[in-house]
Amino acid sequence: MILILNDNADPKGAEYAQLMAALQRLPGIEVRVHRIEGELRAVTEVYLIGDTKPLSIEEMQALPLVERVVRVSEEYRILGRHKDDNRPSHFEYQGLRFGQDTLNVFAGLCAVDIPLHVEQMCRALRDNGQVCTRMGAYKPRTSPYSFQGHGRACLDYVFDIAGKYGIKVIAMEVTHESHVNEIREALRATGSTTGVMLQIGTRNTQNFELLKAVGRQQEFPVLLKRGFGITLDESLNAAEYLASEGNSKVVFGLRGMKTNMGDPHRNFVDFAHVPVVRRLTRMPVCVDPSHSVGSRARAHDGILELMHVTAQAVVAGANMVLVDFHPDPPKALVDGPQALLLSELPHFLEDVGIARDAYQRRIETARRHQAA
Amino acid sequence: MILILNDNADPKGAEYAQLMAALQRLPGIEVRVHRIEGELRAVTEVYLIGDTKPLSIEEMQALPLVERVVRVSEEYRILGRHKDDNRPSHFEYQGLRFGQDTLNVFAGLCAVDIPLHVEQMCRALRDNGQVCTRMGAYKPRTSPYSFQGHGRACLDYVFDIAGKYGIKVIAMEVTHESHVNEIREALRATGSTTGVMLQIGTRNTQNFELLKAVGRQQEFPVLLKRGFGITLDESLNAAEYLASEGNSKVVFGLRGMKTNMGDPHRNFVDFAHVPVVRRLTRMPVCVDPSHSVGSRARAHDGILELMHVTAQAVVAGANMVLVDFHPDPPKALVDGPQALLLSELPHFLEDVGIARDAYQRRIETARRHQAA
Amino acid sequence: MILILNDNADPKGAEYAQLMAALQRLPGIEVRVHRIEGELRAVTEVYLIGDTKPLSIEEMQALPLVERVVRVSEEYRILGRHKDDNRPSHFEYQGLRFGQDTLNVFAGLCAVDIPLHVEQMCRALRDNGQVCTRMGAYKPRTSPYSFQGHGRACLDYVFDIAGKYGIKVIAMEVTHESHVNEIREALRATGSTTGVMLQIGTRNTQNFELLKAVGRQQEFPVLLKRGFGITLDESLNAAEYLASEGNSKVVFGLRGMKTNMGDPHRNFVDFAHVPVVRRLTRMPVCVDPSHSVGSRARAHDGILELMHVTAQAVVAGANMVLVDFHPDPPKALVDGPQALLLSELPHFLEDVGIARDAYQRRIETARRHQAA
Amino acid sequence: MILILNDNADPKGAEYAQLMAALQRLPGIEVRVHRIEGELRAVTEVYLIGDTKPLSIEEMQALPLVERVVRVSEEYRILGRHKDDNRPSHFEYQGLRFGQDTLNVFAGLCAVDIPLHVEQMCRALRDNGQVCTRMGAYKPRTSPYSFQGHGRACLDYVFDIAGKYGIKVIAMEVTHESHVNEIREALRATGSTTGVMLQIGTRNTQNFELLKAVGRQQEFPVLLKRGFGITLDESLNAAEYLASEGNSKVVFGLRGMKTNMGDPHRNFVDFAHVPVVRRLTRMPVCVDPSHSVGSRARAHDGILELMHVTAQAVVAGANMVLVDFHPDPPKALVDGPQALLLSELPHFLEDVGIARDAYQRRIETARRHQAA
Repeated sequence: MILILNDNADPKGAEYAQLMAALQRLPGIEVRVHRIEGELRAVTEVYLIGDTKPLSIEEMQALPLVERVVRVSEEYRILGRHKDDNRPSHFEYQGLRFGQDTLNVFAGLCAVDIPLHVEQMCRALRDNGQVCTRMGAYKPRTSPYSFQGHGRACLDYVFDIAGKYGIKVIAMEVTHESHVNEIREALRATGSTTGVMLQIGTRNTQNFELLKAVGRQQEFPVLLKRGFGITLDESLNAAEYLASEGNSKVVFGLRGMKTNMGDPHRNFVDFAHVPVVRRLTRMPVCVDPSHSVGSRARAHDGILELMHVTAQAVVAGANMVLVDFHPDPPKALVDGPQALLLSELPHFLEDVGIARDAYQRRIETARRHQAA
Repeated sequence: MILILNDNADPKGAEYAQLMAALQRLPGIEVRVHRIEGELRAVTEVYLIGDTKPLSIEEMQALPLVERVVRVSEEYRILGRHKDDNRPSHFEYQGLRFGQDTLNVFAGLCAVDIPLHVEQMCRALRDNGQVCTRMGAYKPRTSPYSFQGHGRACLDYVFDIAGKYGIKVIAMEVTHESHVNEIREALRATGSTTGVMLQIGTRNTQNFELLKAVGRQQEFPVLLKRGFGITLDESLNAAEYLASEGNSKVVFGLRGMKTNMGDPHRNFVDFAHVPVVRRLTRMPVCVDPSHSVGSRARAHDGILELMHVTAQAVVAGANMVLVDFHPDPPKALVDGPQALLLSELPHFLEDVGIARDAYQRRIETARRHQAA
Repeated sequence: MILILNDNADPKGAEYAQLMAALQRLPGIEVRVHRIEGELRAVTEVYLIGDTKPLSIEEMQALPLVERVVRVSEEYRILGRHKDDNRPSHFEYQGLRFGQDTLNVFAGLCAVDIPLHVEQMCRALRDNGQVCTRMGAYKPRTSPYSFQGHGRACLDYVFDIAGKYGIKVIAMEVTHESHVNEIREALRATGSTTGVMLQIGTRNTQNFELLKAVGRQQEFPVLLKRGFGITLDESLNAAEYLASEGNSKVVFGLRGMKTNMGDPHRNFVDFAHVPVVRRLTRMPVCVDPSHSVGSRARAHDGILELMHVTAQAVVAGANMVLVDFHPDPPKALVDGPQALLLSELPHFLEDVGIARDAYQRRIETARRHQAA
Repeated sequence: MILILNDNADPKGAEYAQLMAALQRLPGIEVRVHRIEGELRAVTEVYLIGDTKPLSIEEMQALPLVERVVRVSEEYRILGRHKDDNRPSHFEYQGLRFGQDTLNVFAGLCAVDIPLHVEQMCRALRDNGQVCTRMGAYKPRTSPYSFQGHGRACLDYVFDIAGKYGIKVIAMEVTHESHVNEIREALRATGSTTGVMLQIGTRNTQNFELLKAVGRQQEFPVLLKRGFGITLDESLNAAEYLASEGNSKVVFGLRGMKTNMGDPHRNFVDFAHVPVVRRLTRMPVCVDPSHSVGSRARAHDGILELMHVTAQAVVAGANMVLVDFHPDPPKALVDGPQALLLSELPHFLEDVGIARDAYQRRIETARRHQAA
């Protein structure tokens, strides 16, 4: 059960103390407070965890400061979408909005290799009006003998260059909690001219200790990728770990599932789940066409399959696209064969735009028919 | 290796006999002739099967009547798309064109139950300008104790009603070779006022004896659904069984794969394979959103998930949509819960139209960028 | 609901007519009679299909000829194991017993190629005391351009040779109902010196028309292989198709599931399901280690992996083993690389024997502990 | 390439320095030294990583201290089994041997709940001659709202009680590197009367940072469970992370794969991979029947399915069994329904013994036939 408090709820005030005292007396109920600081106002949500069936909505509504009460189903308490639940499905970061109603493209390098490539990438983004990118510094690799990313060593120049070209948010995977501090320090050292969305990869979707650590900070939003060998439900529960520790600025990422039934694609593309995640939760949904398709195969109609699956995600309402580009794919240290070329960026963006337009026309059409 | 003969190749002529004699002399090579009768002209293709590596393209081209020679890779000889292969990727039936460049919607009843419902369905289609439908008479069911379809008994009234409402093609599943004769006879008995596309379902994708039998007739085109538990490659090989027996009027259908990784959808939606099938073969590609999604779940944006996945297929170039409607879903004998209502048909068609427009804009955009 | 009739129930008698009349009057209930002819006596089971909840066991027991009434759960009515259900879990064929309490080994040729190999195989079997074999005449192949088996053409010599060497039962796959007649005729033409267990392969597990046709005859028992891309429950329902048509002499075969999670095995070995099938149904359970493992890889302890999985099946109670041997594997037309050599037959049989001994010791140990 | 040094190789000696200097000069080759301290002698292995194709075995053999040179394939360099590779496939810990030639049973509590249950469990083990157990303190759970284990808080009493009853090794899952220190400290605080095998669970198989951290210590051996949604190859590469950091006392654990094709088992039992892992690597192989089967379903022969799959693993050479018991399953906080009862321990051990005997008879039989 969630109690949403009045805007003016003051955690130091008497009414607040009174409310907390009342809640502590509830038998077998654990109380967790989530405070989400928005641009204009702060929202305080109080989660009652345990057997809340005996509690009546009326009684709870009668407590001081309580504006509204939502009875939630067991799963995805915080990030889920519950009956009569109109809590927001977006957040702000670095002046950008990430929500179920927006679309942000993060084109960039799967793995940072040399400063020149970072600079070429960022310049191309700026020239095409983009303010987000992806840059991999910490790379989890199947074999211990493969290149594991430059890690801390590349952060300074990556942030410097990104800031110089007006990039506001960089999606960057972390594989250990210490990486968050390294990123925070490097951002400060380079004048905080850009921002970072922490990315948790598919191999760590159920690395609950990492989720808890990343969930305990609220400075950076988090992109959690779906586990490629577990059910959607299990991955959504993993996202809830982030939120249960206090960080609900979470984007959920689809990236294909590991089964040979998806051949010849590298993974079984799962973008039909875009609307499902938006129905079950309030998270914006990201897709990663590069790791799903894993090749530059071109369909007979002249369009790359990677662009086809991107259009499929966007036409069904995807809110974020994470895609690999590289100025010189043969020199890429990781996943070169699936990278798009910088010269393909305008086409890619235009193609995404067509699919987004179509999605918006679809929404309007649905409204018109429902009204009729 | 395929020899494509001149338009005027006459199977009874001297040159033809000369050609065949020359081919018979090739050691270890089996010769199969495929004659595809089009509206305007007939195309004759001669397949050389066996070890064709020693044969030179020049020598073959020098034989009488040979217009062009295509060296094919081992797989999907007839239906596949080979290097420098510009054989047609469409066919005509009942005055309609089915190709990689067209889009046909087959909305209809998963299973025929009573004449009233068939009539209501067909009337709705006519009122919405549709000339194709789906009507299930023979239903393969997991349990022997479930309703198995009305079979032969319903064919007459189905064809009568369909013809009356201007339906030109009915997609109808067959599960035994005898059903083809039953359908042929019923069509004749009712004056051949409509046509049938034979559908082979996912449980029979590797029922090779059925494929051979259906492949031996050329009157009806065939919609072969992908096997829900085998690789794409294996299903494409199954399609080749139809063609190797002489019928290359084949549409390939995607309908979702059987794994719980696709939950909460009934099957794991595999429509990212639409452009893949169009790249590997010359078959038009159909999708079945009803059996893939298996429910009427509605996304938070107000659009049914079933319509979302349809749009995903169409925006990536799908050529045919097979979708379940029912005038009175609670009374449906099979799969009622996933059926759309007749009142939803105009919205469905409009939604498909938006996605198709977007696909065409995407194609034009790709051409413009490639030309640049 | 199943009514098991008295031994002396005479289908032509007055009591029988009285019983049937009473049953016909039950509203919404379909009546199906199964008569199983055993060596000593015939058992008549009457299945009541439909909503049997309102029927009381007492009332049914009061009807003439009814010895016992079993209320069955919905699924696997005939082949399933229901509460308080002590119907037999075995059948006899050619003087051999196939049951949940026996073990029969069927070593033989995956595909018949030449008479010499058939003869070498049968001689090796006789010399090792074996009376069963496998011989593939009709081979379903992924590609239409692969060898499809000699079919009808090889039956006469196969049956002749088998009879000559004392083989009593040959497991032989059929892929079309006409094959059953071909087999019946060839057996008669060659003097019925051997017998056949019809095998339905994994690609036809849900080829319900074939199941119905094979289920309608009772001369030959049937080995139904599990579908390699469907759930166990769906495959068990498929077996029920055979029984619902009248043939309950069914052995259920495990042969591995199609997913790359089983690599480097050809299929994901599923022999942990041996005790599950024996719990849910009364069918004897067969395993096919050759198609599961698909190679002659040898474990570090010197034992072939194919023999390891066989031992795993037998130690958990498997009742039949279908395994590929070949006198000259490089010359085999199908699946040579996984075939065992004739010289390995004694070792294979001895290894199976050790596992069977262990199973029997395990059963005794379990009884002792349960009694304690 | 691996250089195995003489027993008397002294890392402080002149020859050693000479060897290292020679190796440093090899272009593009990284040198890693692994020193494995055994009871009697220390083995030093020098790994040359990079393009070693140009290096000749003769030249390397000529370097000081080098006893033997093994050219390894790319994968599983340290833990793998390479051609002509007779490095040991066992290690010692707490006076016990863990190898491909031994069998150790770890029966115990999935999750520690109260000291009484720990005591009852350990007493039963001692009474049945057991010296190993499993005790879960840190529990990774799908939902953040589920019980997460008592963690550090229970370690002291667990170690105290275990030591008191003669338990030498406790398998205990860790989900964060800090847990290793907590365990080390608690062991010391309680007098080091027992030992711990660190367990890394299926959700962390590709948590490479945890693997690296655990691999950097050599005090505790490690049981790495296979990832339940990745290929076997990927999981074996994960084990190599442990070894590449210095710890090659690694046991590899099978615990079933996540796919509904394994229903009604909780996971798809993958124990056919026991001999495969023993062929590809030198690691002892553990199986976890409790999490694979996930229920107390009893086969028709009176044996629990959980015991059937255990016997299957052991008859094919498994070296370790991790199995859930509980003195009072209804009170278990995690996975109670699959736990065996303490009263079933003697039967379980006897059943395992029968399968182990059979395995040994199978090995002898194989040797006899190979010698023949």
